[in-house]
Amino acid sequence: MRFYFDYISPYAYLAWTQMRGLSARTGVAVEPVPILFAALLNHWGHKGPAEIPPKRLYVFKDVVRRAHAYGVPLQPPPSHPFNPLLALRVTEAAPADRTAEVVDTLFAHTWGDAQPRGVDQPETMRAILAPLGLEALVEAAGTKPIKDAIRTHTEAALTAGVFGVPSMVVEGEVFWGTDSLAHLENHLNGDDPVDDALLARWRDLPVGQARR
Amino acid sequence: MRFYFDYISPYAYLAWTQMRGLSARTGVAVEPVPILFAALLNHWGHKGPAEIPPKRLYVFKDVVRRAHAYGVPLQPPPSHPFNPLLALRVTEAAPADRTAEVVDTLFAHTWGDAQPRGVDQPETMRAILAPLGLEALVEAAGTKPIKDAIRTHTEAALTAGVFGVPSMVVEGEVFWGTDSLAHLENHLNGDDPVDDALLARWRDLPVGQARR
Repeated sequence: MRFYFDYISPYAYLAWTQMRGLSARTGVAVEPVPILFAALLNHWGHKGPAEIPPKRLYVFKDVVRRAHAYGVPLQPPPSHPFNPLLALRVTEAAPADRTAEVVDTLFAHTWGDAQPRGVDQPETMRAILAPLGLEALVEAAGTKPIKDAIRTHTEAALTAGVFGVPSMVVEGEVFWGTDSLAHLENHLNGDDPVDDALLARWRDLPVGQARR
Repeated sequence: MRFYFDYISPYAYLAWTQMRGLSARTGVAVEPVPILFAALLNHWGHKGPAEIPPKRLYVFKDVVRRAHAYGVPLQPPPSHPFNPLLALRVTEAAPADRTAEVVDTLFAHTWGDAQPRGVDQPETMRAILAPLGLEALVEAAGTKPIKDAIRTHTEAALTAGVFGVPSMVVEGEVFWGTDSLAHLENHLNGDDPVDDALLARWRDLPVGQARR
């Protein structure tokens, strides 16, 4: 199962805190795949929650309530929105067997309990990665193959029908947001009320009137 | 508590099916207030879920899964999106003591179990309202005070910080979507982890980098 995410999203952080448990219960492995949320918005001509003033404030309250319900720490990052590219690229540059650890660490320094210092400045990033012995990832993040990989992942997500983060994709089926985690788990357990016959009735629904 | 809604939203339908129970458990009365979702989108320069192709299909699956979890019926309407103004105005024109019954009936004919016939055609609307003895609402829906009232409600919702439907507003606090119903119930029970001191830290969060 692919876990498409961007550090800019507190919902991606919240979902990430739940993925190990979900993976353990269902026996399905989780592969975190860093993508650029802003590129999804650009592609669909959409606005992010932080770009609509009352929604930005609402999201902050909503994630505080969800973190409380999950029993996980949540802190505001130093600024938001911020440029997530460095963090996405550092993640991509990590050795495969340490990717999950890097994701944990960078999320902790964005939204979590590590007195968030933010993940958008190279110097801070080096300090964050030093305890892991992974400072070299900051330089690797600046190389062309790594930059290209984030673009490739983002395009793959778009092709899969992803329009937001976090999105969990399993065998072509997209689940979006923390709200979908229960639906995803039902799906992995073979207990999804959506089937092709039902979906066909909805897929072909005519458009009665579109907004001008 | 105000329940701001538009028949165009299946999430509004799903939330409406839960409001009587929530009201009974908390002792807080619910006042359904019809507003035009398209006007919210126009105001915020936002796109609705039905306007992003993969999201439109995703929403259909998502609401099927949610209806299944709630144990409530869900059917596709004859078309979607459709023009909801007639249904919104009929609701506004209903006598106050029958508003909830009209909302039940129009939602049933949009998304529910009444073999949905749609609520955007005057002839169909008359047939739907006839069993309630309320056919006259179709004519009342065409009058200026009723038309103006929908606009006034929509503007009041915008002023309250509403950016989507359904939104439940209680003493100035907005709760958006079916996902927020548990948060709303906690709030009504005096058990909301969001407080002013916490919120101040988030409200003043600087913007690090905005999307161009």
